[in-house]
Amino acid sequence: MSFSAVVYTAEGADRYDDVRAAIDAPGETWIHAEDVDPSDLDRFGERFGVHQLAVEDVFDGQTRPKSEPYETHTFVLMKTAELTQQSGVAFTKEVRANPVGLFIGDDWLLTLSTSELDTFDPTAEQWTRRSDRIAERGTDFLAYQLIDAIVDDYFAVLDEIEDDIEAVEDRVLADPDPTILESLNEIRRDLLAFRKIAWPARDAVSALSRGDIPHVADQNEKYFRDVYDHLVQVVDLIETYRDLSSGSRDIYLDAVSQSTNEVMKTLTVVATIFIPLTFVAGVYGMNFDGTPFSMPELTWTFGYPAVMIGMGLLAGTMLVHFRRQGWL
Amino acid sequence: MSFSAVVYTAEGADRYDDVRAAIDAPGETWIHAEDVDPSDLDRFGERFGVHQLAVEDVFDGQTRPKSEPYETHTFVLMKTAELTQQSGVAFTKEVRANPVGLFIGDDWLLTLSTSELDTFDPTAEQWTRRSDRIAERGTDFLAYQLIDAIVDDYFAVLDEIEDDIEAVEDRVLADPDPTILESLNEIRRDLLAFRKIAWPARDAVSALSRGDIPHVADQNEKYFRDVYDHLVQVVDLIETYRDLSSGSRDIYLDAVSQSTNEVMKTLTVVATIFIPLTFVAGVYGMNFDGTPFSMPELTWTFGYPAVMIGMGLLAGTMLVHFRRQGWL
Amino acid sequence: MSFSAVVYTAEGADRYDDVRAAIDAPGETWIHAEDVDPSDLDRFGERFGVHQLAVEDVFDGQTRPKSEPYETHTFVLMKTAELTQQSGVAFTKEVRANPVGLFIGDDWLLTLSTSELDTFDPTAEQWTRRSDRIAERGTDFLAYQLIDAIVDDYFAVLDEIEDDIEAVEDRVLADPDPTILESLNEIRRDLLAFRKIAWPARDAVSALSRGDIPHVADQNEKYFRDVYDHLVQVVDLIETYRDLSSGSRDIYLDAVSQSTNEVMKTLTVVATIFIPLTFVAGVYGMNFDGTPFSMPELTWTFGYPAVMIGMGLLAGTMLVHFRRQGWL
Amino acid sequence: MSFSAVVYTAEGADRYDDVRAAIDAPGETWIHAEDVDPSDLDRFGERFGVHQLAVEDVFDGQTRPKSEPYETHTFVLMKTAELTQQSGVAFTKEVRANPVGLFIGDDWLLTLSTSELDTFDPTAEQWTRRSDRIAERGTDFLAYQLIDAIVDDYFAVLDEIEDDIEAVEDRVLADPDPTILESLNEIRRDLLAFRKIAWPARDAVSALSRGDIPHVADQNEKYFRDVYDHLVQVVDLIETYRDLSSGSRDIYLDAVSQSTNEVMKTLTVVATIFIPLTFVAGVYGMNFDGTPFSMPELTWTFGYPAVMIGMGLLAGTMLVHFRRQGWL
Amino acid sequence: MSFSAVVYTAEGADRYDDVRAAIDAPGETWIHAEDVDPSDLDRFGERFGVHQLAVEDVFDGQTRPKSEPYETHTFVLMKTAELTQQSGVAFTKEVRANPVGLFIGDDWLLTLSTSELDTFDPTAEQWTRRSDRIAERGTDFLAYQLIDAIVDDYFAVLDEIEDDIEAVEDRVLADPDPTILESLNEIRRDLLAFRKIAWPARDAVSALSRGDIPHVADQNEKYFRDVYDHLVQVVDLIETYRDLSSGSRDIYLDAVSQSTNEVMKTLTVVATIFIPLTFVAGVYGMNFDGTPFSMPELTWTFGYPAVMIGMGLLAGTMLVHFRRQGWL
Ligand SMILES: [Mg+2]
Ligand SMILES: [Mg+2]
Ligand SMILES: [Mg+2]
Ligand SMILES: [Mg+2]
Ligand SMILES: [Mg+2]
Ligand SMILES: [Mg+2]
Ligand SMILES: [Mg+2]
Ligand SMILES: [Mg+2]
Ligand SMILES: [Mg+2]
Ligand SMILES: [Mg+2]
Ligand SMILES: [Mg+2]
Ligand SMILES: [Mg+2]
Ligand SMILES: [Mg+2]
Ligand SMILES: [Mg+2]
Ligand SMILES: [Mg+2]
Ligand SMILES: [Mg+2]
Ligand SMILES: [Mg+2]
Ligand SMILES: [Mg+2]
Ligand SMILES: [Mg+2]
Ligand SMILES: [Mg+2]
Ligand SMILES: [Mg+2]
Ligand SMILES: [Mg+2]
Ligand SMILES: [Mg+2]
Ligand SMILES: [Mg+2]
Ligand SMILES: [Mg+2]
Ligand SMILES: [Mg+2]
Ligand SMILES: [Mg+2]
Ligand SMILES: [Mg+2]
Ligand SMILES: [Mg+2]
Ligand SMILES: [Mg+2]
Ligand SMILES: [Mg+2]
Repeated sequence: MSFSAVVYTAEGADRYDDVRAAIDAPGETWIHAEDVDPSDLDRFGERFGVHQLAVEDVFDGQTRPKSEPYETHTFVLMKTAELTQQSGVAFTKEVRANPVGLFIGDDWLLTLSTSELDTFDPTAEQWTRRSDRIAERGTDFLAYQLIDAIVDDYFAVLDEIEDDIEAVEDRVLADPDPTILESLNEIRRDLLAFRKIAWPARDAVSALSRGDIPHVADQNEKYFRDVYDHLVQVVDLIETYRDLSSGSRDIYLDAVSQSTNEVMKTLTVVATIFIPLTFVAGVYGMNFDGTPFSMPELTWTFGYPAVMIGMGLLAGTMLVHFRRQGWL
Repeated sequence: MSFSAVVYTAEGADRYDDVRAAIDAPGETWIHAEDVDPSDLDRFGERFGVHQLAVEDVFDGQTRPKSEPYETHTFVLMKTAELTQQSGVAFTKEVRANPVGLFIGDDWLLTLSTSELDTFDPTAEQWTRRSDRIAERGTDFLAYQLIDAIVDDYFAVLDEIEDDIEAVEDRVLADPDPTILESLNEIRRDLLAFRKIAWPARDAVSALSRGDIPHVADQNEKYFRDVYDHLVQVVDLIETYRDLSSGSRDIYLDAVSQSTNEVMKTLTVVATIFIPLTFVAGVYGMNFDGTPFSMPELTWTFGYPAVMIGMGLLAGTMLVHFRRQGWL
Repeated sequence: MSFSAVVYTAEGADRYDDVRAAIDAPGETWIHAEDVDPSDLDRFGERFGVHQLAVEDVFDGQTRPKSEPYETHTFVLMKTAELTQQSGVAFTKEVRANPVGLFIGDDWLLTLSTSELDTFDPTAEQWTRRSDRIAERGTDFLAYQLIDAIVDDYFAVLDEIEDDIEAVEDRVLADPDPTILESLNEIRRDLLAFRKIAWPARDAVSALSRGDIPHVADQNEKYFRDVYDHLVQVVDLIETYRDLSSGSRDIYLDAVSQSTNEVMKTLTVVATIFIPLTFVAGVYGMNFDGTPFSMPELTWTFGYPAVMIGMGLLAGTMLVHFRRQGWL
Repeated sequence: MSFSAVVYTAEGADRYDDVRAAIDAPGETWIHAEDVDPSDLDRFGERFGVHQLAVEDVFDGQTRPKSEPYETHTFVLMKTAELTQQSGVAFTKEVRANPVGLFIGDDWLLTLSTSELDTFDPTAEQWTRRSDRIAERGTDFLAYQLIDAIVDDYFAVLDEIEDDIEAVEDRVLADPDPTILESLNEIRRDLLAFRKIAWPARDAVSALSRGDIPHVADQNEKYFRDVYDHLVQVVDLIETYRDLSSGSRDIYLDAVSQSTNEVMKTLTVVATIFIPLTFVAGVYGMNFDGTPFSMPELTWTFGYPAVMIGMGLLAGTMLVHFRRQGWL
Repeated sequence: MSFSAVVYTAEGADRYDDVRAAIDAPGETWIHAEDVDPSDLDRFGERFGVHQLAVEDVFDGQTRPKSEPYETHTFVLMKTAELTQQSGVAFTKEVRANPVGLFIGDDWLLTLSTSELDTFDPTAEQWTRRSDRIAERGTDFLAYQLIDAIVDDYFAVLDEIEDDIEAVEDRVLADPDPTILESLNEIRRDLLAFRKIAWPARDAVSALSRGDIPHVADQNEKYFRDVYDHLVQVVDLIETYRDLSSGSRDIYLDAVSQSTNEVMKTLTVVATIFIPLTFVAGVYGMNFDGTPFSMPELTWTFGYPAVMIGMGLLAGTMLVHFRRQGWL
């Protein structure tokens, strides 16, 4: 086999025959296959005695998390999640999900990832040191620990999304500009993508905790119920963040309306005061001439000051009116 | 006296043997552990004979209310709620939830809170005086009384939120300004946070009232049904308040639109009347001169009055038009 | 007892001992307690042999309609509804709900209302005249008649709300003003409050009609199914009215947008025509003088008419353009 | 009997005694009562041996479609639907629903309509010619044929509503005006009213197709499943039409915003170009005089052309700017 | 050879006896009837021994995908989907759905399409070469392969819709114009139409995978579960695309608001600066004359420069104010 299969047994084994032997031998065995090449897809199921349809679900990358009982094992499909930075595109962050398959047998566990995976490292190290505990609790308990590690990573993604929302909230209050909607749309995309992982994962783990699945022992169901609680929290937070981001959207859109309103008030106050005054000045700039009815005030001694005072009173009245309207 | 309330603290740890003895002895026992230090987490479950996963759910602080049957006891996770003032941040109020664990055994009840807790004081005092009644009704009835006390406090939170909504409603009608949306967003956050407590608590108490849970006696189920009714009311009120706050939001946003509309009407009326008149005045200010076709009315005896009356008629016609349009 | 309990039996009885005797005696008995003082709450359940939790639900006033089986009786909590006028507040109408408790025993019915109640009068009168029929059909049939009377009153409330909606619809089309949103908000509040009565009442009556409740005879279930149908209609109408009022809200908000649009068109047409013309007039009002390149048309014989015709053509062209745009 | 009951048997019968005799006699019987007077309501159930509550549901006109088992028969309440034109009111079309009751007995079928009904005519004619087939398939198959005929008419209503939506869509694109929202509101009302018929009818027919109802033979359930499929299509189309009409609403409201935007651009371009120019012209119209610092360009040989060219350059620059902004 | 694929055409109708013989003979048989003429509808069911109601569902074209058990066979109705270009209409793309019926018998499979169909060609070719495998796995496995081929085509439709959404997103950011809403509406229509195929198909395939359907062998259910997973993905993607297109709609509508806001700012800045200045110029253009109080600055040596500098300062102050407001 070209992939790097690591067999975690007390004895240790790394060749394919040893793997089969370890599975068939008494005692708990965990085989972890990582960064597996797609070309190995065809023979994978046959070699390890798991169903080819389930193996395809891992390689396919699009199938939603789920748990399915097969005759000799239970298949659990989970997805790891991380928020990756994309350079050079409009939407710069993206929820990247990598499928991980867990095949829970009677006394063996096969885990399969098509990419490299750090999430299982602490559990693997713990296993290497304390392999006797697994014999006590079973490979279903080991499966719980691995699924729990995957779900713990979800909270890091949620923290990052929460930081993004808080950053947008600050921008909305400080300086609303049109890129806010794009940021909120990106956050919404991320939440949408994340929900597509977390929601079915919740159902998959719920099935493991309810006693419907043959390869999970009764005394271990409560551990899957604990992971289920965490996944409920994840889904709750996703919904909360959706709500918060739509609240920010409302405040932003209102800020645009308010800004238009402010702009209009300024224009209206200035134009409403000066357009009539300009008309008055225009009247006195007309060239009517030489008749007693043609603007005799033009020649009065106090004509000009009277007109200026009249215009000032008109402007003052309007200013008072606008202040009462709350436009100033 | 068959009932014993014991407070478990770091100092009281040497009284641990007394606690175990009280649990194992015949007769009802209530142990209440409050303000427990996180460092005591690890040994807590083992010492008191309750499951460590459940103890972690209390210490963790994020797990939603729930009720879970274990072999020797039923675990109920509830959350107390209060609306606390935060100084120096944009959103000044926050729903603070503190987890409280109730472990209902056959003839014992263990309650666990990581923070200080006043809610149980009246019940504790009542039972100190009338410990014989507990022997009669069982520790599941005591658990009902404590859960009922927690839920009664929810209504105080709802009252405060209702006051906040009414304050916003008054501001919307009296003087709509952009901070209203922020206030409504804060109320929405509070309701969202509160719903995350009340909704699962309703389901947890419902399970206790339906006869599915072994450690609740049949004749006591009706009391949990009563608490369930209160939690249904809480959830109903939360939905109602969401609706009311979104109604206020609509009225506020319409007030902004209306204000823009009013501003535009003012500008339009003034500009539409005076811009044409200013044009007329401008025409008569042109320096055409010396030909019989160049504004002969400038020299007519009644030229100026005629022009002024014409302009007045034009303005009057427009005023009538605007009044008919409802713009004045 | 200080409350006015009316015992409807063939013999008639109005003292407490008679009441207990009537209940215990063979033959159907209906006891109706109305306008009961809260101070009587404590002893009520004990005296009449019904559960105190249920009595509290009636006195509490906030509990939602429901039906609950107890050992010796079935408790049905219903709410009467009326739309009352409130003077001196912003929202002038309010759905007032009064709780009515019905305790259906084997051959007795206890009804309890904390306020005065007219709804049961016709049934009471009918009972007084035809008490033999109740013996035939049972007190569960009597309970059906009383619940049916309560639900019939709901349609009067719905009629009034429909009238309010129609009044708002007329105002929206005739003269949209900002108070419309407040009216619609009030209607929405009323529908919200009403739904909180009707929705759980539907479920409570549904339970009575499905054979789950011990104190309803099989042959009487179809009557509760009939009341259930009416409650489904009530809930349907509430949803329909919500939809209609949100349709009116859309039309109103569009009317505001349209009004702003109309105002802007008027301003734009007038300003766009006259501002350029005023500029032209301003040019010919400049005091350039004495050179051959300084506006020689000022002294041409047909200079002024030519300019005026030019300006008229410009204005006409713009009017044609605006009419083509649909702005006139 | 005053109503026109038509009894479809091989022998034919039109008097009441014959009707009862036909029902009681062996062999399939279909009695159809149409245009029945409300005054006949009271005796209807008793005479024909069907339950009075079910008869009331037909006469009442408000009860939703449903199917209910009674002891001796199954009652199915359906509603015919047509879209009628109303003259002289704001909303001119209305979904008119007429209740039709079907009572399916062992070997008889009673159909009851309070109004005249054409929908059953083809089936009646077919029955008259081929009454032997009904003996073969049972009166439940006949009930299927009649319900199928009622549901087939729903598609005509949907076609008309689709035409209305398409007409509105054309108007939205061609010439958006405020009556569009009223038209869309009317369509929404129609869909709402229609959904209130189709949704419960779907559930009623589903019950008939699932084997829960005693008076439908197993081999005939598949026919009701076929009608159920049609009702699912009807409900689907109603939802689709709601979506389409809300899509049209969005496009219309955007057209209003766009129009305001276009109007504002026109105003802004014209005003922004000519207001500064008018200011310049106004400056040169000031009467400063007689000092070397007072606008000496007024007397320069090329002063006027230079100013005019300057103003032309300013206007040209702004035009270029506006074109780059996309405002022209 | 135990497998026989027969194409039923109008010409091939005389080979009908061969088809019946193949069905009745032992060994697996697949009959595929394509491009069938509606005039063959009536005799189709009878000839092939399948139920006429099911045949009508295929010919009808409107019935939703479903799976239904009949006595001798299971009927599965699927729909192929493609996105076709329509020339000369407003909405140019349309989801075209063609019904395909699959009748799964004990050892035979009948597939029926009213139009030509390429989707089944690869499977047909594969089975012609390897007909022995069908004998091994059964005609229900063959049905799985054909349904899987239909569902695989759905992803091509989704890819095209995704491209359309991305094209709109680019246009929204680059150059928002009113046709964007029409494009988004078209996408929404397509998604709506597609969902009406995918949603019920998911339920139909789910029924085949759950062991409820008699003609699917237990060991083949997992294959239908695999198709079910793909259909869940399809429905997920449809919901995601709806969300994305409504996100684009928000950004577009905000772009319109922003544009209006920008336009208004430009107008306000220009008008607010120049309208007061024009008023000042107008004042100095008034023809007051000959008195010491009539604008003596007109004759001052530095009168004109002082006025110009004053106006410049006023304009500069306003520019600074507007820049602080963020309007420049
Ligand atoms: Mg798969
Ligand atoms: Mg990222
Ligand atoms: Mg993203
Ligand atoms: Mg964890
Ligand atoms: Mg953070
Ligand atoms: Mg936990
Ligand atoms: Mg944990
Ligand atoms: Mg607070
Ligand atoms: Mg808060
Ligand atoms: Mg309480
Ligand atoms: Mg209050
Ligand atoms: Mg209580
Ligand atoms: Mg209560
Ligand atoms: Mg009222
Ligand atoms: Mg009210
Ligand atoms: Mg009634
Ligand atoms: Mg009315
Ligand atoms: Mg009825
Ligand atoms: Mg009735
Ligand atoms: Mg009735
Ligand atoms: Mg109509
Ligand atoms: Mg209508
Ligand atoms: Mg039909
Ligand atoms: Mg059509
Ligand atoms: Mg069909
Ligand atoms: Mg059909
Ligand atoms: Mg297409
Ligand atoms: Mg399309
Ligand atoms: Mg596939
Ligand atoms: Mg693409
Ligand atoms: Mg596959």
